[in-house]
Amino acid sequence: MRLVVVAGNTETAGIDGISAAGADPDLLVHTPAADLELLAYGEPVRAPVVPVSPSGCPTPAVVTRAATELLGVETLAVDAGLARPTAAPTVVVGDDPGGDIREGSPVPDAEAVYGASRRLGRSLPNEQIVVGETIPGGTTTALGVLTALGERATVSSSLPENPLSLKRSVVEAALAAGDAAPGDAAGDPLAAVRLAGDPVLAGVAGLAVGAVEAGTAVTLAGGTQLAAAAALVWHAGVDADLTLATTSFVADDGSAAVADLAADLDLAFRATDPGFAGADHPAMRAYEAGEAKEGVGMGGALALVDEEPDASMADLRARLRRVYDRVLADGREVRQ
Amino acid sequence: MRLVVVAGNTETAGIDGISAAGADPDLLVHTPAADLELLAYGEPVRAPVVPVSPSGCPTPAVVTRAATELLGVETLAVDAGLARPTAAPTVVVGDDPGGDIREGSPVPDAEAVYGASRRLGRSLPNEQIVVGETIPGGTTTALGVLTALGERATVSSSLPENPLSLKRSVVEAALAAGDAAPGDAAGDPLAAVRLAGDPVLAGVAGLAVGAVEAGTAVTLAGGTQLAAAAALVWHAGVDADLTLATTSFVADDGSAAVADLAADLDLAFRATDPGFAGADHPAMRAYEAGEAKEGVGMGGALALVDEEPDASMADLRARLRRVYDRVLADGREVRQ
Repeated sequence: MRLVVVAGNTETAGIDGISAAGADPDLLVHTPAADLELLAYGEPVRAPVVPVSPSGCPTPAVVTRAATELLGVETLAVDAGLARPTAAPTVVVGDDPGGDIREGSPVPDAEAVYGASRRLGRSLPNEQIVVGETIPGGTTTALGVLTALGERATVSSSLPENPLSLKRSVVEAALAAGDAAPGDAAGDPLAAVRLAGDPVLAGVAGLAVGAVEAGTAVTLAGGTQLAAAAALVWHAGVDADLTLATTSFVADDGSAAVADLAADLDLAFRATDPGFAGADHPAMRAYEAGEAKEGVGMGGALALVDEEPDASMADLRARLRRVYDRVLADGREVRQ
Repeated sequence: MRLVVVAGNTETAGIDGISAAGADPDLLVHTPAADLELLAYGEPVRAPVVPVSPSGCPTPAVVTRAATELLGVETLAVDAGLARPTAAPTVVVGDDPGGDIREGSPVPDAEAVYGASRRLGRSLPNEQIVVGETIPGGTTTALGVLTALGERATVSSSLPENPLSLKRSVVEAALAAGDAAPGDAAGDPLAAVRLAGDPVLAGVAGLAVGAVEAGTAVTLAGGTQLAAAAALVWHAGVDADLTLATTSFVADDGSAAVADLAADLDLAFRATDPGFAGADHPAMRAYEAGEAKEGVGMGGALALVDEEPDASMADLRARLRRVYDRVLADGREVRQ
């Protein structure tokens, strides 16, 4: 078992109101690099930002790290196009962050990223991998890909109020820039990514396809972004028996309809509740209030805790408190 | 605690008779990439080579992986200049492998590698790091650096019979190519690396200096190559309280005099015996016969096993058998 996180950036995240993964666009861009450091080291070590919202909601990487520490799960970070350097060890499958999808051709190297990820997925020796993502703005590009493929065009949000109409207008602009209509990229997943996607979607899809080809069981750990990656796999014509493992926070988000999307794509679906309700902790309260919801493999990490007979969600919450305190230790500057 | 392995290549390894880390130079060049994969995944996954000698002696990465699996130690792979791609996640601190030291200026980017590694070392949050290396031909470049610095010019070998006179003639050629005499680089470690070193030595030295600056305890996990890195730290004028942790196989190599070298450099010295004597296993017999001896952090990994109250060397040997069987599993092509 290995938990893989595919990371990257898209300039789409800079559109005002799109993402909660960092209040300030100048700092937001560091979030995926910081997430990978948090996953590798238990705290950001070089990225000049701790991904914690003003209300105290930390990046889901804190939950995922708590789970991997608790379970001793090995991890792998994949750089599909980070805009800022990370001190986390990575396998690089793409060199460039994605562009703003409104401006057309946001991922010109989609095929190269998909191919390199597929080779990596084929080479992993694990019987099972759990694949997550970190890319601010990623639900908008997921909506773009779902729309281009002609799939159910609905996604979740890291904000308590999902700015779906804003996302839809951004995706409309992307399709207009590519002179395309919804569904035009059906059966051509790389065209969908090139039209309105991001490099992380290409990376996750390639990784999943390669792993399936090698006989590895693949769990997609996330919500609508991972469902969009599954849609890419489906439209590649790959017969994959995939599971979508997300959090109860995404599953409970009526605006996202992630269970319906999973059913459309023949994905086994599971949502895991970390039991944050009633907890007297700023991180857990923020998730209960609808912030963040998912990301950095959180839903898959929670499923692993749920499956482990020797670990409980209470253990996970106790570990989360420790990771949170470490991340926000005295002297560390919180810059979001 | 984190075990860090700095990897790279030097064309010096291609000199006939220098290294046992791969019988065939065309395959030898893949050894460090394969070692990092073995450390990350428990087996080489993409590198087209299993680093096992014709007599059945596997790369020390097998022992180090057995220890990190047994103890649950987190690892970090640092690419200081690999000549071949690896599917292991890495932090890249150098882009180019080192040249053949006989041809002059083998590491023109020594300062950049040292600087990037130093920043990485400063950023690591661990209280202790254990730092090893993988670079075929590395004992020759270590001899080059020790000679250039004017330190005790004696090193170990991955071969049962240490080709010291060959190494010395190679180092003489390196110094001649740089118009330098032994000791000319005293007090100028980067000059020593540029004259007769390799990128891994620059990487290990920079990492150690950065970690010491951050208050991290540093154990150099290896033999004469790590002692050469310590000499670079010493000649940088850094007051570091370093430990050299090597294997009993290096300590017992009279040709290397590693304990004397450690004493010269004020290094705390320890050698750990994995208890391979009398074992009925091809890997253990090969080490007992003087092959490989050390590398990929093996000595430091054994020290960690020795320090862990809940683990024994018998546990390590049992785990080594499992890792060895996995690495040599049916269907895997052994190409060395």
